[in-house]
Amino acid sequence: MGKEISIQVIRRLPRYYRFLSELEKEGVDKISSTKLSAIMDTSASQIRQDLNCFGGFGQQGYGYPVSQLKDKIGSILGIQNNYKAILLGAGNLGKAVATHMNFQSLGFELSAIFEKNPRLIGTMLRGITVKSDEEIKDFCTQNKITTAFLCLPKDAVSAQVDILYSLGIKTFWNFSHYDISKKYPDTIVENVHMSDSLMTLCYRISESQK
Amino acid sequence: MGKEISIQVIRRLPRYYRFLSELEKEGVDKISSTKLSAIMDTSASQIRQDLNCFGGFGQQGYGYPVSQLKDKIGSILGIQNNYKAILLGAGNLGKAVATHMNFQSLGFELSAIFEKNPRLIGTMLRGITVKSDEEIKDFCTQNKITTAFLCLPKDAVSAQVDILYSLGIKTFWNFSHYDISKKYPDTIVENVHMSDSLMTLCYRISESQK
Repeated sequence: MGKEISIQVIRRLPRYYRFLSELEKEGVDKISSTKLSAIMDTSASQIRQDLNCFGGFGQQGYGYPVSQLKDKIGSILGIQNNYKAILLGAGNLGKAVATHMNFQSLGFELSAIFEKNPRLIGTMLRGITVKSDEEIKDFCTQNKITTAFLCLPKDAVSAQVDILYSLGIKTFWNFSHYDISKKYPDTIVENVHMSDSLMTLCYRISESQK
Repeated sequence: MGKEISIQVIRRLPRYYRFLSELEKEGVDKISSTKLSAIMDTSASQIRQDLNCFGGFGQQGYGYPVSQLKDKIGSILGIQNNYKAILLGAGNLGKAVATHMNFQSLGFELSAIFEKNPRLIGTMLRGITVKSDEEIKDFCTQNKITTAFLCLPKDAVSAQVDILYSLGIKTFWNFSHYDISKKYPDTIVENVHMSDSLMTLCYRISESQK
């Protein structure tokens, strides 16, 4: 299961998970695809199609059981795996990522934070003492780190990725524009291109004024 | 022109713009769709199709003129418009956004930063003094603000969006999970859902281990 599911469907799953988690918090037991589609601002048929990819949830006319569906989607996403990750960069972006993200509910455990700037080394972030990036190698070989979150400037990323890759780290959450998978095609990379998002906003404003 | 172009194509344009800007910096004059596709890790036919949406660039066999193509895409995106924007939230995320983003090259001008926390009001970010969020109303009515960047916690967003919307601000770059366009369907919203991206990474790791 899963292998044949398109990346488009996969990319919608976190959103389902997010909305279902909120419904669960609100104490909602069951929800119809029509109601869910109104909340999520998609079509009911899209929802039925997407959820059918993962086997039958609920019965026609009875609605989806919220908690069960949420747990199933969470398990498809693999958030129970708690992949051990390190964060590189304790500047503003690294700080924001370290403090805002609820890693455990997203499938990861933040094991360490590394930084080059001596002024930031030794400071605390989310109860974790920021280490010197000279300790990356030892730390990763001693702990079973699978993933790196890269909150580094583009020109610093390349050299760090070389080191991390040599240590066997092949999955990256990357905030820079450096193209990791081009050099290392066997890596798994999710890029967060904030500037692309802002440019798209710019386009949509411009179009709306025509 | 533009109206009939799919959002999928539009969402690829910032990426074209990014790669073409780099090629321009490197002094590349012309580039074939084949070479561009290798750099961008897409198919050459995709590139030809996308660029054909906006009228003919270059001639078959001669390659695309890099600067001209970049400028044309920039102008389609509307980055010359310099939309006046305010940033709400000067916490870690707001700091990261204020300091990392090259707003002007992305179509925006950052006019002011607002914050609720008295400890942060009066501090400097990117040469801008952080103001109290009590000044939002006066500032926006005196300046022609069109856009708000929201780096606020989810529970703070709703009330601020109500205020901003009442001031005529209808375009938002939103980092929270609060669904602005659901309450205000006539707004233009780009959401940055960092947690969705991280969950997708989690899924892809889990799948790769099956």
